[in-house]
Amino acid sequence: MGNFDIHILGCGSALPTTRHLATSQVLNIREKLFMIDCGEGTQIQLRRSRLKFSRLNHIFISHLHGDHCFGLIGLISTFAMTNRTADLHIYSHPELQRLMEPQLAFFCKGMPFQVVFHPFDPKERAIIYDDRSITVETIPLKHRLPTCGFLFREKPLPNHILRDMIDFYEVPVYLINRIKNGEDFVTEDGTVVPNERLTTPAEPPRAYAYCSDTAYLPRIVEQIKGVDLLFHEATFAQTEAARAKETMHSTASQAAQIAKDAEVKRLVIGHYSARYEDESILLEEASAVFPNTTLAQENLKIEL
Amino acid sequence: MGNFDIHILGCGSALPTTRHLATSQVLNIREKLFMIDCGEGTQIQLRRSRLKFSRLNHIFISHLHGDHCFGLIGLISTFAMTNRTADLHIYSHPELQRLMEPQLAFFCKGMPFQVVFHPFDPKERAIIYDDRSITVETIPLKHRLPTCGFLFREKPLPNHILRDMIDFYEVPVYLINRIKNGEDFVTEDGTVVPNERLTTPAEPPRAYAYCSDTAYLPRIVEQIKGVDLLFHEATFAQTEAARAKETMHSTASQAAQIAKDAEVKRLVIGHYSARYEDESILLEEASAVFPNTTLAQENLKIEL
Repeated sequence: MGNFDIHILGCGSALPTTRHLATSQVLNIREKLFMIDCGEGTQIQLRRSRLKFSRLNHIFISHLHGDHCFGLIGLISTFAMTNRTADLHIYSHPELQRLMEPQLAFFCKGMPFQVVFHPFDPKERAIIYDDRSITVETIPLKHRLPTCGFLFREKPLPNHILRDMIDFYEVPVYLINRIKNGEDFVTEDGTVVPNERLTTPAEPPRAYAYCSDTAYLPRIVEQIKGVDLLFHEATFAQTEAARAKETMHSTASQAAQIAKDAEVKRLVIGHYSARYEDESILLEEASAVFPNTTLAQENLKIEL
Repeated sequence: MGNFDIHILGCGSALPTTRHLATSQVLNIREKLFMIDCGEGTQIQLRRSRLKFSRLNHIFISHLHGDHCFGLIGLISTFAMTNRTADLHIYSHPELQRLMEPQLAFFCKGMPFQVVFHPFDPKERAIIYDDRSITVETIPLKHRLPTCGFLFREKPLPNHILRDMIDFYEVPVYLINRIKNGEDFVTEDGTVVPNERLTTPAEPPRAYAYCSDTAYLPRIVEQIKGVDLLFHEATFAQTEAARAKETMHSTASQAAQIAKDAEVKRLVIGHYSARYEDESILLEEASAVFPNTTLAQENLKIEL
């Protein structure tokens, strides 16, 4: 089983502080990197993370507030100066393309790769990325402008071959892939060897859900049911519940309620309001509802 | 005499590293703040500096490479979210306005202040800012696209009154300002008291020259003659002289040669290429030509 790591590059909210940077995360899924959001300073954090810039080909933008996308132009400029040739794919609300193209034309003129925009409608649930090993699905959210989260889901992995049994039954090589994928084996004399004797099940596919920014939105529970890790914004503590509602953000306990109802394995909260000198109140309030909660912080890496 | 401080917010070059951020500086001149250049991450560094955001009303952009202006949109967005009402003045090549206006219209819609663009031609030497206490003059430079430096010059200060002498000669209050500005005093009986008996001279006006990015350009020497502090880019060491010429940057020793020829009091070098793990070679090469050289670094504050 390859890696499936979440790197938090920034987990502050709209106003950067000396403690938190604007939102960005990188998923390292079997050495392919996927970025979610790209606030100002992201490329600096990416440099710090020691992740390889060249492995990043896909960037997903949840919504067009500056703290989620102002780092794009700097990151792309850096790619343009460092001999990147692979196309860079950006998945976002269509408006981003209109805003970025004049900047790219001026600041990145003649760059040796294409920026390919993949516009989508954040209000619709849809699979917007699909490769051999994962799918990425939008999670429509409720915020002050069109916003969605992203559900990264591994595809089922083939079973593991039991080498000794394969040898014992003299299974020919050309059948191995079919057996990995669950077929039984029939010997020359017609005996059926059930798949369970020849393989052990693969690890269950892993899933990560990213939900930021959003008001408390119980309808997402069904979509993110049982994921291994949920990142949910928790901009405010309970005392600021009215402000959360007004600005269409969530409180820590609302984030935890979502995690609990969705029966996720683990919750990470972030997108902290600049008003908190430390986030212990947020952790406390979330943990009271959903104990397996972690505070996001810059340079935190979580392995699934 | 009020303060005249230079705060280095970032002093790297095009590629940010884990050691240096993109270019930005803030001048604190008698509690008015003036920003020069605004690379990505500037607002975060400004927060770290503890300088008051509300005192910053004027931003000067040397040229339109991303490492000198990508931080503007984030900084302005933050101003828009923090109840700023004072207009913000940006002095730059006219192209910046064209690039920024669609972004401002989208990301900062309805903000409670105006961004006022003051376009200028970087190829012409001109005074682009003038208030009670300072002038800012462009210093045309030589780079891959239109670029200029900035010369911040204090206006002459009034002399200091010698209180005892004023009392002794019974100088009336309404004459004090004229005496501060150099007039002699004539007593009732017609005796002329020369100004030197009534005042001590003010401190000489201070001047700061910022020259980045530029190829070695001896013709600026005349314009920056004798300034108290020169910031000059020193992207490369001597071994990279060919690369400096090709990319229209300067070596450390070229920066120092300018400082020496201009007889400045002190030189600060910066805009280091990402290739240097530390800048000791640059300091060494510059100091060999002009001993009073300092390496810029993030969060360095220099008082004139």
